[in-house]
Amino acid sequence: MSRKIAIIGMGHVGSTAAHYIVANGFADDLVLIDTNTSKVEADALDFQDAMPNLPYHTNIIINDYSSLIDADVIISAIGNIKLQDSPTNDRFLELPFTSTQVKDVAAKIKASGFNGILVVITNPVDVITSIYQAVTGLPKNHVIGTGTLLDSARMKRAVASALHLDSRSVAGYNLGEHGNSQFTAWSTVRVLGQPITKLAADRGLDLTKLDAESRDGGFRVFHGKKYTSYGVATAAVRLANTVLNDALTELPVSNFREEYGVYLSYPAVVGRDGIVEQVQLDLTDEELKKLQVSADYIKTKYAESQTD
Amino acid sequence: MSRKIAIIGMGHVGSTAAHYIVANGFADDLVLIDTNTSKVEADALDFQDAMPNLPYHTNIIINDYSSLIDADVIISAIGNIKLQDSPTNDRFLELPFTSTQVKDVAAKIKASGFNGILVVITNPVDVITSIYQAVTGLPKNHVIGTGTLLDSARMKRAVASALHLDSRSVAGYNLGEHGNSQFTAWSTVRVLGQPITKLAADRGLDLTKLDAESRDGGFRVFHGKKYTSYGVATAAVRLANTVLNDALTELPVSNFREEYGVYLSYPAVVGRDGIVEQVQLDLTDEELKKLQVSADYIKTKYAESQTD
Amino acid sequence: MSRKIAIIGMGHVGSTAAHYIVANGFADDLVLIDTNTSKVEADALDFQDAMPNLPYHTNIIINDYSSLIDADVIISAIGNIKLQDSPTNDRFLELPFTSTQVKDVAAKIKASGFNGILVVITNPVDVITSIYQAVTGLPKNHVIGTGTLLDSARMKRAVASALHLDSRSVAGYNLGEHGNSQFTAWSTVRVLGQPITKLAADRGLDLTKLDAESRDGGFRVFHGKKYTSYGVATAAVRLANTVLNDALTELPVSNFREEYGVYLSYPAVVGRDGIVEQVQLDLTDEELKKLQVSADYIKTKYAESQTD
Amino acid sequence: MSRKIAIIGMGHVGSTAAHYIVANGFADDLVLIDTNTSKVEADALDFQDAMPNLPYHTNIIINDYSSLIDADVIISAIGNIKLQDSPTNDRFLELPFTSTQVKDVAAKIKASGFNGILVVITNPVDVITSIYQAVTGLPKNHVIGTGTLLDSARMKRAVASALHLDSRSVAGYNLGEHGNSQFTAWSTVRVLGQPITKLAADRGLDLTKLDAESRDGGFRVFHGKKYTSYGVATAAVRLANTVLNDALTELPVSNFREEYGVYLSYPAVVGRDGIVEQVQLDLTDEELKKLQVSADYIKTKYAESQTD
Repeated sequence: MSRKIAIIGMGHVGSTAAHYIVANGFADDLVLIDTNTSKVEADALDFQDAMPNLPYHTNIIINDYSSLIDADVIISAIGNIKLQDSPTNDRFLELPFTSTQVKDVAAKIKASGFNGILVVITNPVDVITSIYQAVTGLPKNHVIGTGTLLDSARMKRAVASALHLDSRSVAGYNLGEHGNSQFTAWSTVRVLGQPITKLAADRGLDLTKLDAESRDGGFRVFHGKKYTSYGVATAAVRLANTVLNDALTELPVSNFREEYGVYLSYPAVVGRDGIVEQVQLDLTDEELKKLQVSADYIKTKYAESQTD
Repeated sequence: MSRKIAIIGMGHVGSTAAHYIVANGFADDLVLIDTNTSKVEADALDFQDAMPNLPYHTNIIINDYSSLIDADVIISAIGNIKLQDSPTNDRFLELPFTSTQVKDVAAKIKASGFNGILVVITNPVDVITSIYQAVTGLPKNHVIGTGTLLDSARMKRAVASALHLDSRSVAGYNLGEHGNSQFTAWSTVRVLGQPITKLAADRGLDLTKLDAESRDGGFRVFHGKKYTSYGVATAAVRLANTVLNDALTELPVSNFREEYGVYLSYPAVVGRDGIVEQVQLDLTDEELKKLQVSADYIKTKYAESQTD
Repeated sequence: MSRKIAIIGMGHVGSTAAHYIVANGFADDLVLIDTNTSKVEADALDFQDAMPNLPYHTNIIINDYSSLIDADVIISAIGNIKLQDSPTNDRFLELPFTSTQVKDVAAKIKASGFNGILVVITNPVDVITSIYQAVTGLPKNHVIGTGTLLDSARMKRAVASALHLDSRSVAGYNLGEHGNSQFTAWSTVRVLGQPITKLAADRGLDLTKLDAESRDGGFRVFHGKKYTSYGVATAAVRLANTVLNDALTELPVSNFREEYGVYLSYPAVVGRDGIVEQVQLDLTDEELKKLQVSADYIKTKYAESQTD
Repeated sequence: MSRKIAIIGMGHVGSTAAHYIVANGFADDLVLIDTNTSKVEADALDFQDAMPNLPYHTNIIINDYSSLIDADVIISAIGNIKLQDSPTNDRFLELPFTSTQVKDVAAKIKASGFNGILVVITNPVDVITSIYQAVTGLPKNHVIGTGTLLDSARMKRAVASALHLDSRSVAGYNLGEHGNSQFTAWSTVRVLGQPITKLAADRGLDLTKLDAESRDGGFRVFHGKKYTSYGVATAAVRLANTVLNDALTELPVSNFREEYGVYLSYPAVVGRDGIVEQVQLDLTDEELKKLQVSADYIKTKYAESQTD
């Protein structure tokens, strides 16, 4: 019945995701929604001006919640433009703003009859994913945050750069909150046929420094251009494609883990039915502690968001 | 020897072109140059953060003019960010700013030993293309402006939209200045197997209105989001790919026409040797007059730019 | 609901179309059907062996007619392998074989509850398309033959080669039967901004020779490798994508023209609803005569196929 | 300077690799070489007939060894069509035929002045890669066999299928000869965040059976369609792209390992300079023994090929 993706929030991230989809013909129907009508209309027109020079056609639908009823995937890219202009290192500064918006949007998604998979980029992503799930009433495994899919990519970039290697040749995960309490689970990282913990000694790699680099990567981009866009939009579209293709790919994304009672990033198998299987890693005691701290932090913040 | 593209100017347009190239693996080596070091570094890092979730690898080189020596194509996307925040309908307001920058950049390109094809997006594009050619000393057919490749796309979008048709199924050209003196050469436009001049009568199409729509399309986008990006970046990358592939595609781009003594947009065959053949259209007398007016306007503006 | 394409007939053409789809991630679900079970299983396994080195995932379903119920597009690529090994210039030699097979397959398609668009490659394509429509009972505009989409491509290739030009820069159509009675409607062919009839005189092009080249192109490929595959498979997949994207592209395909009472190739606008609009060309008297001859030939052959 | 790839041998595998390249615009110039002139001409024409319906242009050059002088990558896909029609499980039956051909082709490559990376698919691939390196005199790290890049893909497909998972979510390697003495190094295989040796017990996976499945995968395809094409062509093109992009990806390919004194498959980092780094795995004693057996077998066969 053709592929239908919707993007809600056409700031830097949402419009970059839309461009990536249009330029590659990933969707047949693309719904773009933003409260800034002139911005979303301008982007839609700009995409249509691109099409005669592009190989694929994409139908673009603007600001129509009723068209979500048969969408396969919705990507929430709502963000706070104003905060984005005064960058800080704490994604929770966005919470009061985005949680209010998200509750409104989630109610509209619910009202549309949407029955697909909801991919959440909006920060603070773990809490926002919870809010989306609660308000839409969608099954927990049908609401997924991009979470540390991006941070894991940053860790891979940092490790690959240190070893003069393709970042796709680094395996492993950043876990927990897509925020300051996250961490690289070095026990899961493998490169050049070995655990990085072993290789690091031989090659003189400083894992603490690499850990900081992956955690702070976003802020380096943020301070340089006042927003981040390509990394996170690519992660979100990859996640959407994984759902559409029913690829059953293992990805570190924000999913609801019963044992922690919150959405947090932990590898899971993703397909057309959303989170199809949850992976069970053999983490070290130290990593388990860090993950608990991160989970507790998210839980506290989620509770706060409910009392606002 | 692999494909090497350079982009000079990493504002909205340059970074969108870079993203399109990275997301599709069009280049093996991508040189990004901008005087705003923190912006270009942030974009480069953001692209590298995207790569673990992308299928192709692109080597990114930052702010190194010496690496242009073996580039296949340079895309000039220099623009005036400040002017972009106070949009007007006259691209010549950018001239004093961009022409100064461009002379400096062109001298650096020349000094690098660059010997490929230079694709110019920077506005006012016809005058700027002339300046680039004069300062770099590159052969006239190796310096090409994107010109009305974008405006022709806008015309196709407007016509296609009126007829419920794919914009790729509309043939024809906007000619002259990529600016207010341009026009759709309706005698060249064909759709649904007929000249549009014939079809318009049958279908009740108002060509004057469609002409305005293609000419003003950019400003509608501009007013909506304070810049245009996807349409023009797509046109520029298509032009770059046409050069790399040696595709010999007929495209309406800004090229030096001896009979007018200026760079202006007129269809030409584009390949690895730049402008390989200049097309000769059978324009109406009225269209020829409009083209002369447009050429004269560009000539005057170019002369002015030389006396600054 | 994701993109679902089915290919029936996994000979050279069907498997090449499948490969093109898998390698580009055009479909989420791909149904492959062939009476030669070991061949279709081998191809499916070979595709699965390719996937770890490909960027996209495609679910492959084998020999399951019941899965056609929610397919968007079926491509019929049934052919007579044996005839393909003793090539001749007459596609109607395939008719007794393929029409029998096709009636059986069409009945199974009907029984599956399929309600999408049927794209027919099987030769002789105009007659076979009629048979498919009659037996499946699908609306006439939902059954489309690739027809002269391929022959038009061959004409473009021949013209482009003579003029040292990109074949995508040649506009125009081959019309009528995808067979010996077809012809290039030179009045529709435009290149380098001019009607080819005018340019031919200036450039010394021999249109009769080019006409033969486009008509005989298939047989040159056929004699060289005993089958044709890339050109026709690419045409068929482009047609399928046009349907999925609802692109509303004008394409010369085999569609039912009331005035001729048969399926024959003539440009039409193609979208998710199949043939959405039929184009009306201004053909010359000579071209109209040739088209009538071609239509009569198809009609006769179709009548013969009904009396078998 | 644009991407230039050459394919020598246009049987099933070579022409499938060429199609994959043309359909995705991976190369700007594509040289196709085959002693069967009518076959290679037919394929070239067929590709050109596809281009008007494809987004990218590729220049195709036929049977011109002199054009190899500035090729980036040559893919050797020479094979014995006759043997392919009477399939057996021993790739060494091809040796007398292919080694003779390869010596002749390698001398012509040397004479052309080719200075890029040579990717070898021709079987028995480890021995043939040695012969190519010896005759061309290219540096050992510039001649690479696809080796177990394909067999590793087959292992991933088998494991993924057993676990209902994306084959791209399985990490690990098949090592040694691309032939009967190869084996899956299960100690390197990880899936769902765990070593497969641990997971196998929990999930009831039979590794011996999976090992056989990956080793015999090729023969199942072979028996079903008398040749294999998609899996191996995809692996070869991925390898070529890795070289062009200078991606520095870790891949299990046939490379010369000093400690064994032969070409055999073992993971290595691949970039524009060919084999850039050789990985050192922590294999088990049993795996090391198997690898020695495989290396000895290749060495013996190579010695035999030198005395013919």
